[in-house]
Amino acid sequence: MPIRIVLSQTSHPGNIGAAARAMKTMGFADLALVSPRHFPDPDAVAMAAGAADVLQAARVVGSLEAAIADCTLAVGFSARGRDLSHAPAALRSLVPEILGAAASAPVALVFGNETSGLSNEELLRCQRLAHIPANPAYSSLNLAAAVQVACYELAASAGTHALPASGGAEAATREDVEGLVAHLESAVQESSYLDPGHAGRFMERMRRLFARAGLERAEVRALRGMLAAFEKKMRR
Amino acid sequence: MPIRIVLSQTSHPGNIGAAARAMKTMGFADLALVSPRHFPDPDAVAMAAGAADVLQAARVVGSLEAAIADCTLAVGFSARGRDLSHAPAALRSLVPEILGAAASAPVALVFGNETSGLSNEELLRCQRLAHIPANPAYSSLNLAAAVQVACYELAASAGTHALPASGGAEAATREDVEGLVAHLESAVQESSYLDPGHAGRFMERMRRLFARAGLERAEVRALRGMLAAFEKKMRR
Repeated sequence: MPIRIVLSQTSHPGNIGAAARAMKTMGFADLALVSPRHFPDPDAVAMAAGAADVLQAARVVGSLEAAIADCTLAVGFSARGRDLSHAPAALRSLVPEILGAAASAPVALVFGNETSGLSNEELLRCQRLAHIPANPAYSSLNLAAAVQVACYELAASAGTHALPASGGAEAATREDVEGLVAHLESAVQESSYLDPGHAGRFMERMRRLFARAGLERAEVRALRGMLAAFEKKMRR
Repeated sequence: MPIRIVLSQTSHPGNIGAAARAMKTMGFADLALVSPRHFPDPDAVAMAAGAADVLQAARVVGSLEAAIADCTLAVGFSARGRDLSHAPAALRSLVPEILGAAASAPVALVFGNETSGLSNEELLRCQRLAHIPANPAYSSLNLAAAVQVACYELAASAGTHALPASGGAEAATREDVEGLVAHLESAVQESSYLDPGHAGRFMERMRRLFARAGLERAEVRALRGMLAAFEKKMRR
């Protein structure tokens, strides 16, 4: 997905490194820096951790126009409402448009200076204004956190990354579950826990529990082993 | 929304502070710390920035059980697949269940140690295992970034935070737009830009553009002012 992160007028190089790390965790690698105050810088490398390659490949340019010249869509991020420009939209509401545009050309996500944000001039170069909905009493996401959220939202919405392989437990078949239910019912009746007339309600409850849990084959085996042990002891 | 962030066995107090900041930006304030290596600590306060109140109110407990005793749902976060426990689910897919449970009791989001994550024992105390989908080649979100993403996902899905007030530009009425279209058509015909027979195509195109743009009243006024100036010059 051709998403470009553009950081404009960044004051602290550590924030550039942390943003590079955030990008890479979500699978993005295209970073453009508009007139950063200090770059390259050891603080950027330190905060990038395993994303030094993203920093290495970053383009440093002198204007926002140069950073977004080949993009068909540039989305500016702003924490506050702005009088002179577009109305802000919630990040999530812009995702379909961003993913659609990114199908044919790079899309720029543009983040301004840590303190002052994007200037009105910069916002006028963007076609959309995105807002990360936040606590009105404390909306101060740091720069890398905002980049992390934006990249997460796009990657999660696009379904870019699969879940990690898990143990792959084998699900119980209907036959397995019916075998367990029958075994449980006979063991419970043998135990005299229930009056014969009341077993129905109890068994219904257990069926619901098993259905909700989504039993694994190994769990059915373990439960039946336990029931068998009860039965054995009860028969002594 | 009663969401509790539980950080277990955290090594670096700076990460606790950064997580508190991430929480507060999304409007969450309930923080529990299970056996943190160093806490309280000046690094935590420094990284919390304006969220010192969240740190101040954090509960320090000796076990995960104590941190989640009053919760009906505890969701463990893990970056990797785990053999011995639940299959991981994408964070977003768990949101409806989390929001549903949070309607009646606190829900815990549980994050393990920075290096080793949650132990299998800890995961067994959780009813669900959440995964933040990430780049398989570099899935190393730092602790505060993971907390930021989780809190953002819940707040954005719940629609907790409104957009900031914007300039509130007044939209043009249909009458405004028709006035502009008529004005444009007469000025264009006066300019001889178009043969009289071809004005229809051009005006259709302009109508489409105005419709797509969603004109503001002030923009209609500015465009008509410009047209009037053209007309005046053309008539000299």
